[in-house]
Amino acid sequence: MTAQGDHITSRSDRVIISVDAMGGDAGPAAVVAGISTSATKNPEIGFILHGPSDELTRLVARRKNLRGRVEIRHAEDVVTMEDKPSHVMRHGKGSSMWSALDAVRAGEAEAAVSCGNTGALMALSMMRLRKLPGVNRPAIAVLWPSRNPQGFNVMLDVGADIRADADDLLRFALMGASYARNGLDLPRPRIGLLNVGTEEHKGRPELKEAHALITAAAEQSKFDFVGFVEGGDIPGDICDVIVTDGFTGNVAIKTGEGTASLIGDLLRAAFRYTILSRLASVMAVTSLRRLKKRIDPRRVNGGVFLGLNGTVVKSHGSADATGVSAAVKLAFQLAQQGFTEKLKARVASGAALTQGDATSASAEANEN
Amino acid sequence: MTAQGDHITSRSDRVIISVDAMGGDAGPAAVVAGISTSATKNPEIGFILHGPSDELTRLVARRKNLRGRVEIRHAEDVVTMEDKPSHVMRHGKGSSMWSALDAVRAGEAEAAVSCGNTGALMALSMMRLRKLPGVNRPAIAVLWPSRNPQGFNVMLDVGADIRADADDLLRFALMGASYARNGLDLPRPRIGLLNVGTEEHKGRPELKEAHALITAAAEQSKFDFVGFVEGGDIPGDICDVIVTDGFTGNVAIKTGEGTASLIGDLLRAAFRYTILSRLASVMAVTSLRRLKKRIDPRRVNGGVFLGLNGTVVKSHGSADATGVSAAVKLAFQLAQQGFTEKLKARVASGAALTQGDATSASAEANEN
Repeated sequence: MTAQGDHITSRSDRVIISVDAMGGDAGPAAVVAGISTSATKNPEIGFILHGPSDELTRLVARRKNLRGRVEIRHAEDVVTMEDKPSHVMRHGKGSSMWSALDAVRAGEAEAAVSCGNTGALMALSMMRLRKLPGVNRPAIAVLWPSRNPQGFNVMLDVGADIRADADDLLRFALMGASYARNGLDLPRPRIGLLNVGTEEHKGRPELKEAHALITAAAEQSKFDFVGFVEGGDIPGDICDVIVTDGFTGNVAIKTGEGTASLIGDLLRAAFRYTILSRLASVMAVTSLRRLKKRIDPRRVNGGVFLGLNGTVVKSHGSADATGVSAAVKLAFQLAQQGFTEKLKARVASGAALTQGDATSASAEANEN
Repeated sequence: MTAQGDHITSRSDRVIISVDAMGGDAGPAAVVAGISTSATKNPEIGFILHGPSDELTRLVARRKNLRGRVEIRHAEDVVTMEDKPSHVMRHGKGSSMWSALDAVRAGEAEAAVSCGNTGALMALSMMRLRKLPGVNRPAIAVLWPSRNPQGFNVMLDVGADIRADADDLLRFALMGASYARNGLDLPRPRIGLLNVGTEEHKGRPELKEAHALITAAAEQSKFDFVGFVEGGDIPGDICDVIVTDGFTGNVAIKTGEGTASLIGDLLRAAFRYTILSRLASVMAVTSLRRLKKRIDPRRVNGGVFLGLNGTVVKSHGSADATGVSAAVKLAFQLAQQGFTEKLKARVASGAALTQGDATSASAEANEN
């Protein structure tokens, strides 16, 4: 691994994103195409690209706009979708995923992006970057199309862990609020706690406990707590951040994705049904394209790992160039805003709160 | 409460459905309109209708096709959506919901239908009808639009209880299989157990345990167990019955409903955008109507309570006449097939299995 101070990272005007070129279903060509799109759109981004150097050198050389903006770090091994996280933690040192995270760990890059195996990426991220003080369970946050003005809600955890106790749920609320401020530009996000009903007596014991903890933290942490919300509120407009455990969150987003995909297919089939409807679909092509763009998961591609010393964006495994570019854009935006430092202060502030030591929360933390 | 043997229940060719006229958002007029639709479609159905007799008599008198087919049972009280189940169990004796269930309990009706408060209906159903032998937790099963040839999957539990242990999940599999056979005409349903991944090492301990129990029961109980499935498989085609706990199931269906509703609204908005797209939407009106019908929740309106001595169909609280009629149709179909008796034998058979006493399962049970 090369040291800092090469011709790219020394350019102080560039934000360096560390990109794992391997492990995605579409292969390194799609990743290089994606960073090329990002490079054109954002002149401030520089890249460290991790994977087999021969192949990557060849792919990068074909893109003129990447000249002088990509440093390639050779990594022989690839973490596959089938690899178990425990195996990768023991034997993954030579992999592009490990290398991509180590560039963030070493301070050479501001954030890491990978299309690889989610479980392995989370396990390696926890091992190499370590959890933020006060965080027991990191979380994966995603954006979900909603009726809100910003067009999206934040939902976490969607699968970093299958468990979350009341204290974890409070941390998720604090981290989700910080992410909504920095990722969606919402100065005072509204937080909802996912349950099977909105009445306070409903749900599991840890949810009732978390309800009390989040209520107590709201004022100090500058968010509004709307209380319990239901599955229908995930695409709704009564809150901006939905807090839940990783089991429930994972099932919910996959159900939503599956339902959206089924409706899309049925819609296409409906339009093919008669000559008149075929003609109509041609006439409505821009309207349908607008709708597709609005709910296109590639546009919001990127689950962000929250609660670590460093920003990691998990791009969808099947991401194409558009998807990779969206993930890079998200990593860039969060890096630009110094998100990791803000999150750290925010969680420390919230942690102090639950320990009955609200005064120790720094004033700085309240601006995040 | 009048005794059996009146002019309606004595007609041996009629299947009597007990209908709670009150408690739905649309009021008793929608319920009467719904049973009127059902009465026209199915000459074999007779009704016992529960609620304030003056109002119901007036509403029924307006529908000629209901003449001689509806017995009205006076019930003064209404269970509201806000009533807590515990309150209804103590004080609900004069309510239309209680009366509707008692007609099933007394053997006067084959099945009950209510649009009222789900929690109260489940609590009263457990109290008045009692759980089937071998069932610890009853479950609510719904139909969900899917890519399967039958157009729908069965999912349970979607909210009878927020918990389910491995043994409960096995019972859900047995009950869901029986429901798919009788409600969807699938002789050998495929069962999936909802999890955050399909690998056997994933998920909570009770899921791994349930995986083993359901695997062991599959052959004897004549269903195929496809193993763990994910949220995306709920609208998919790899299984016919999705088994999960009531917390996860409730969040999943509400997320799916909310997503479908958001897409529907965005689609309408997209078509309003330009003159050309407005014209296109007029041309595509039958195609869009076909799509809407395919995913219209009213068409599959009716969560079935499984695991009780009697069939109870919970219609959506906001059900209109179409929705009520769909719920009545489902209750009628299950009643015609002697579903409760079949389910009872099936659960007894499965329960014997887990006690290592497979041979005691009756041959009759295997036909259900």
